[in-house]
Amino acid sequence: MSETATTAAATPLTFETEPRRYKHWRLDIDGATARLVWDVKEGEPLRPGYALKLNSYDLGVDIELADAIERLRFEHPEVRVVVLTSGKDRVFSAGANIHMLASSSHTFKVNFCKYTNETRLAMEDASAHSGLRFLAACNGIAAGGGYELALACDEILLVDDGNSAVSLPEVPLLGVLPGTGGLTRVVDKRRVRRDHADIFCTLAEGVKGQRAVDWRLVDAVAPKSRFDAAVKERAAALAAADRGPQAPPRRGPGVALPPLEPDVAKDLWAYSTLGVAFDRKARTATVTLKGPDGPPPEDAAAAHRLGANLWMLRLSRELSDALCRLRFNEPEVGLLAIKTLGNVDAVLKHDARMAALAQTDWYAREVVLHFARTLRRLDVTARSLFALVEPGSCFAGSLLETALAADRTYALDDSARQVEMALSPLNFGLLPMGHGLTRLEARLLSRPADHASLRGRTQAGETPKFDAPAALAAGLVTVAADDIDYADEVRVAMEERASLSPDALTGMEASLRFPGNETPETKIFGRLSAWQNWIFQRPNAVGEHGALKCYGRPERPSFDWTRT
Amino acid sequence: MSETATTAAATPLTFETEPRRYKHWRLDIDGATARLVWDVKEGEPLRPGYALKLNSYDLGVDIELADAIERLRFEHPEVRVVVLTSGKDRVFSAGANIHMLASSSHTFKVNFCKYTNETRLAMEDASAHSGLRFLAACNGIAAGGGYELALACDEILLVDDGNSAVSLPEVPLLGVLPGTGGLTRVVDKRRVRRDHADIFCTLAEGVKGQRAVDWRLVDAVAPKSRFDAAVKERAAALAAADRGPQAPPRRGPGVALPPLEPDVAKDLWAYSTLGVAFDRKARTATVTLKGPDGPPPEDAAAAHRLGANLWMLRLSRELSDALCRLRFNEPEVGLLAIKTLGNVDAVLKHDARMAALAQTDWYAREVVLHFARTLRRLDVTARSLFALVEPGSCFAGSLLETALAADRTYALDDSARQVEMALSPLNFGLLPMGHGLTRLEARLLSRPADHASLRGRTQAGETPKFDAPAALAAGLVTVAADDIDYADEVRVAMEERASLSPDALTGMEASLRFPGNETPETKIFGRLSAWQNWIFQRPNAVGEHGALKCYGRPERPSFDWTRT
Repeated sequence: MSETATTAAATPLTFETEPRRYKHWRLDIDGATARLVWDVKEGEPLRPGYALKLNSYDLGVDIELADAIERLRFEHPEVRVVVLTSGKDRVFSAGANIHMLASSSHTFKVNFCKYTNETRLAMEDASAHSGLRFLAACNGIAAGGGYELALACDEILLVDDGNSAVSLPEVPLLGVLPGTGGLTRVVDKRRVRRDHADIFCTLAEGVKGQRAVDWRLVDAVAPKSRFDAAVKERAAALAAADRGPQAPPRRGPGVALPPLEPDVAKDLWAYSTLGVAFDRKARTATVTLKGPDGPPPEDAAAAHRLGANLWMLRLSRELSDALCRLRFNEPEVGLLAIKTLGNVDAVLKHDARMAALAQTDWYAREVVLHFARTLRRLDVTARSLFALVEPGSCFAGSLLETALAADRTYALDDSARQVEMALSPLNFGLLPMGHGLTRLEARLLSRPADHASLRGRTQAGETPKFDAPAALAAGLVTVAADDIDYADEVRVAMEERASLSPDALTGMEASLRFPGNETPETKIFGRLSAWQNWIFQRPNAVGEHGALKCYGRPERPSFDWTRT
Repeated sequence: MSETATTAAATPLTFETEPRRYKHWRLDIDGATARLVWDVKEGEPLRPGYALKLNSYDLGVDIELADAIERLRFEHPEVRVVVLTSGKDRVFSAGANIHMLASSSHTFKVNFCKYTNETRLAMEDASAHSGLRFLAACNGIAAGGGYELALACDEILLVDDGNSAVSLPEVPLLGVLPGTGGLTRVVDKRRVRRDHADIFCTLAEGVKGQRAVDWRLVDAVAPKSRFDAAVKERAAALAAADRGPQAPPRRGPGVALPPLEPDVAKDLWAYSTLGVAFDRKARTATVTLKGPDGPPPEDAAAAHRLGANLWMLRLSRELSDALCRLRFNEPEVGLLAIKTLGNVDAVLKHDARMAALAQTDWYAREVVLHFARTLRRLDVTARSLFALVEPGSCFAGSLLETALAADRTYALDDSARQVEMALSPLNFGLLPMGHGLTRLEARLLSRPADHASLRGRTQAGETPKFDAPAALAAGLVTVAADDIDYADEVRVAMEERASLSPDALTGMEASLRFPGNETPETKIFGRLSAWQNWIFQRPNAVGEHGALKCYGRPERPSFDWTRT
């Protein structure tokens, strides 16, 4: 009954690329304006078996998009506006490739949607925090995932040529939901009236022209003859618009992002700042994060000189890469044990410096924002996370966040070799979860006074430190066990965890990890994705006569009409 | 491929009962304190095929609970505290009956969970709005749904006898989620730390004694010898506690709730204030709500004299009953067309009077609160809702809410027989959706100034009225069509809607209906339920070797370990 055959491919997926290697996108930069042009190569799908017609996309196309967004933030700080458009005539994008979806395993579909959602959220993150503005220049039809990509932009301009429409045809054509945040963004972000949204989401041909403007589906339309001029106009306006006082000015030169080049063997992945060691029989992996091996950069200039070798960025890029590989290539690994290795004070020094530099230097700020995104990627990774706090570890500040992201934390309480955990300014707002709270706030939801006290001490320049008993009392660890019990307790807990239904754990963890607040981001991952997962399992979508399976065939889908 | 055979039973389910007919509960009232004692009759399941051992429950048990909660609000206004306890020794409740779940269709399971969730939310609604306080006196083990019922109470007292624990064993034992809000209430309502919640929700045997208090899973424990005294003490304290200034005092005599006695024929259900007419070939039903046929009660005394004959309460009870029957007995009816019949001004007069009386009279307030719950039941009903505004209709105030709850609204724009819609004070806060916004706020999310203006006019004593074109302009209707086009437009829209995948529509509607805010209630229906629906479909739960299917058999479940 294993899906592994179709899920974990013979050739593991990789997630790194660079503009020179792009097959499907072009990134042209002209001063403050970048043009990100998709022109998907029909004959170059990530796997054989389907053609990427009409700018439809698969994971390979999205990996390039994610790379471009990231490079814009680091390598091109002078860019203030990204015009996202299509290199094809009359079509912006037909969305995620249906034949790819129909021939993929359930697990792949779910992870594909998660990855594409993260890419779109990264665009909105760049807009919110880096002053980048995205203009979707829809020079042709934008259907399904094509329109959802436009929805992730700040503005949508649609050509008014009597033919080009925006649409979410998933429900009427495929019997599934738009999988990349479309439903949430339509009503929550663009505030399309819910009855209009209801019509729109059930209308295969979509909405075009003035009605698309009236219904708030796009911001403006322009006739074909004026489209390029209108794009230029809006791009210029977005470039010139005030970004408010808070962000440090972004200016060149940028910081290059070289390849990570991990050494990925079957049972051990070695990155420069972390390792992933597999115990395949136990279906677990141990992720060991290494603290900094030197002092932090002295000032902004030093940080820029270090470039991508800056510890926090290396760690963040490498952890993000490892999480993507784990999701797609190691679907049967159900539990990640998170360890750290290094010096607590070294982490605290880096954190303090980065928090200070992030106030005034765009690059330091980008590094912290990158790590925040990586931590959110960890939060929505559907694997059980146990943090293990052992002698020699450095769960402090930024690295403590990985323990606070974990479902449980076990600490070894050995008075002879006592562990040390610590808080830094980075635990108090710069690394928020998707629902807007910090991990420490979420952890201490029932103890707001304790949280306020820790924040006050940290703001006063202290770095509160905790040995195992103190961390237990403060709520930073779940279990503190002495050296007689620790190893057995952790082993039994991991064995028990790995024996439980992986589906039930996914639903449970998605529910328990986000107490309190909700945001569109958590609506997308918690609500929309859960509905989509359900629908992706239903015979009405994926059965022999389901709508997704029938798409493109002459036969009509056949439904069980029972409403659930 | 139809599930209907197991979903819609040969004998349709009914949802009415009364204390004298209870099989599983006893309701004893002593002054301000009610004791609601469950003592489930093992041999009296709703359907043959399973035994309700250890106070485990099925829909029949929950229907009685819902009835008791409702009668406490209307028939026993003097009650201030409800002690919920078990009549069995050493067991509070073992939760939802597993053999019932394992032998039920997917659709039944989902609707069962929805109904039980509504009952628990009704308890919290009674606490929030009617000053009723619920004390779960767990005199024995409270497992799964048993503990979830305790979670819906204001306080939980657990006997400390070395054996009695609270637990959510669904994940470890059954491979599914706790289905009645448990995960959300544990971390959101009780603010159990999420790592403690993680251990708790994977620990089949649960947590007992002082640890249950330390982890906030219960409020207090008491040894067996002191348990009854402790219950009395806490009940007395809850009875005496200040309820704040806002609620009108609740005092006797109560208002009796007689049986509804609808005339339910196969294709036409006739209630006193509404009718449901089926078009089975089209898989649609038309729900016609009748406006009041007389003036509103002059004052509180008159309202009390009318009792359950008060129009708004009759309508609310009947609509609620019809929705339950539709969900369980008519699973293939995919679309409800909502019509109204009556006089706009009569509705407005009733609304104005009820809004005024609800400030000072407990019964009027209970009627409005009941209607608010019924409308929320409509909001989470997994059927497409189209409101049809035609001459002779009375979509005003309270009845307009049913149109605002609809996915779309079609109005006939015929100058010779113009329709009339209107706003009343009830559209501005007394009938909120589950996510805390009014339906008008949710509808006008992109036009807050227009909403504020309508609210201002209504607060100033106006009753803004709209013919079809004005309603279209104000955003109250989706489509206004003239008498040449109307019938065809509605017919085509209904046919198209009824042709779409029912699963995709359920997920889409659940997403589009709740723009903006989120609350624990919408987390339960939108997030938790969606995950549960997904898990309920997965082979790891319901396959031949799934955990839910294997429960109680000698064999161990066998899992596909792929993490999704």
